[in-house]
Amino acid sequence: MALTAADRIREGDRLALARLITLIENDDENYQEVMDALYPYTGNAYIIGITGPPGSGKSTLVNCLAKDLKKNAEYSSGKIGIIAVDPTSPFSGGALLGDRIRMHAHTSDPNIFIRSMASRGALGGIALATDNVALAMDAAGYDPIIIETVGAGQAEVEIANLAHTTIVVEAPGLGDDVQAAKAGLLEIADILVVNKSDNQKADNTAASLERMLALGEELKEKSFGSHWKIPVLKTSAIDCTGITELTEKIYSHHRYLHESGGWDKCDLVRLSKQINELLRASLFKNWQEQLDQKSFNALMVQVMHHQVSPHQAAQILLKHNR
Amino acid sequence: MALTAADRIREGDRLALARLITLIENDDENYQEVMDALYPYTGNAYIIGITGPPGSGKSTLVNCLAKDLKKNAEYSSGKIGIIAVDPTSPFSGGALLGDRIRMHAHTSDPNIFIRSMASRGALGGIALATDNVALAMDAAGYDPIIIETVGAGQAEVEIANLAHTTIVVEAPGLGDDVQAAKAGLLEIADILVVNKSDNQKADNTAASLERMLALGEELKEKSFGSHWKIPVLKTSAIDCTGITELTEKIYSHHRYLHESGGWDKCDLVRLSKQINELLRASLFKNWQEQLDQKSFNALMVQVMHHQVSPHQAAQILLKHNR
Repeated sequence: MALTAADRIREGDRLALARLITLIENDDENYQEVMDALYPYTGNAYIIGITGPPGSGKSTLVNCLAKDLKKNAEYSSGKIGIIAVDPTSPFSGGALLGDRIRMHAHTSDPNIFIRSMASRGALGGIALATDNVALAMDAAGYDPIIIETVGAGQAEVEIANLAHTTIVVEAPGLGDDVQAAKAGLLEIADILVVNKSDNQKADNTAASLERMLALGEELKEKSFGSHWKIPVLKTSAIDCTGITELTEKIYSHHRYLHESGGWDKCDLVRLSKQINELLRASLFKNWQEQLDQKSFNALMVQVMHHQVSPHQAAQILLKHNR
Repeated sequence: MALTAADRIREGDRLALARLITLIENDDENYQEVMDALYPYTGNAYIIGITGPPGSGKSTLVNCLAKDLKKNAEYSSGKIGIIAVDPTSPFSGGALLGDRIRMHAHTSDPNIFIRSMASRGALGGIALATDNVALAMDAAGYDPIIIETVGAGQAEVEIANLAHTTIVVEAPGLGDDVQAAKAGLLEIADILVVNKSDNQKADNTAASLERMLALGEELKEKSFGSHWKIPVLKTSAIDCTGITELTEKIYSHHRYLHESGGWDKCDLVRLSKQINELLRASLFKNWQEQLDQKSFNALMVQVMHHQVSPHQAAQILLKHNR
């Protein structure tokens, strides 16, 4: 009997996995069938999210981490998945050259599977596509899976935060804007990393992060009572300094999640979000398919002439097309 | 007869405008009525989007620009609106302290209205909320309205790109990641600014942007035949150097948009997007309201046990709840 795409992916066929990911990125209607067949075999992979402002050296750090994890049979399956989410190019929709080059170091390694994601058009957006790619890698035996978000916006931060463990990477002494953005990033971090620790400002940055965390911990203890103390680590990704300590901290958090019930909670949030995204997109798509384009255009003329507000137009459309 | 909120906003009552914006941010059900009443008086304001990576000095540049435009009766109404979109804090949902401080310079100026937006929960998201705030300022006589996006992600870039004219700000010699992100930002720029021009690397950065643009122009001529040549300007926002030239270029683009029909096209895109966002959100909200939470939870248990895939769950929910 011929093997299905799902069978081949589970057996470790990299080409079959790559093809499925392309279908997911293009929102090809055939991908869901394969995903449905793979889904029973998912749920094993530990998903690690890495985010941080541009210039903090995330990609280089991910390279170090993947190399270290691959060797580490205690922690990993020996097969590491990396998804680099890069939606910074809103029009070309292609992954950026820079990352392709950086990642080349691993592309010949059969135990590391790297994929850059830059799709935006997919039903449910890039968060849903990333989630599906992670599930596919999971079924193919990749564990852990690292999701690196290259941008520094809200969407990118939210994607990284869907992981079991979220690592926020900072660089020493960045500008004013970045300083401010830290406030937001700190709230999602399970582990904080000050990269480029060879920089003389690294100790200051780490100390200031520790102070911000201490302040946050006080507030947190009162409301949630979480028992995980967010560590601040220093790394230098250029020569992979500090990576062993980082790996250890990551797997401390892994243990913490299992002991505290956080692991299941994390999966529940991620899967509910995925279902809601699918529903939101399907409802709109179904609705659009039965929309009369002529009456929509006529309404748009009235909106352009400031006779009907966008809100009124939406109300009219909802009434006439249900 | 008592004045309505819409009347007061049109008469220049800043407090009434501030209250409406708070309603928009909180997605309070009463805001749409006011927006509907204001909508016939919108369509005058020139909307200028400013985006760029963190650390490029966007906020300081916006301050310079607002000061220059306010004096310039040829171009502006004398009343300038500024919306700083800052969704970098996914959990606190509050605007960041840093920007509040930076903006303090203008808060006592009755002809500049500044608002930081960080709401995420609003129906249709922050893009829709920003759009509504711009419409409200427009009806109140603010022209131009500057939308500054503080983050550097896809969502932020898209918000800035909804403006009539999009300015992308770069700083000289930023890191690798930022370099790569330029590729995406370049595609949406009508005007490019290298800020911090006192930095010795500014000329190099400007020259490299010119080269990238020349390459892009070649491709563009073939496909779209746009006649706008994207200028690269140098500014130093610390002492507002180069701002007069920037203002002139901005209003050259303003003229170009009116001559080429680009202005209406831009409004059409923005308003259609707003209507679609409203529809998408309303459809999902209506659907959720009639959802049986018990059957949803039962289904989630099956998804968590890997018996039903998220896609299958969405299909089941769509079938049973229409």
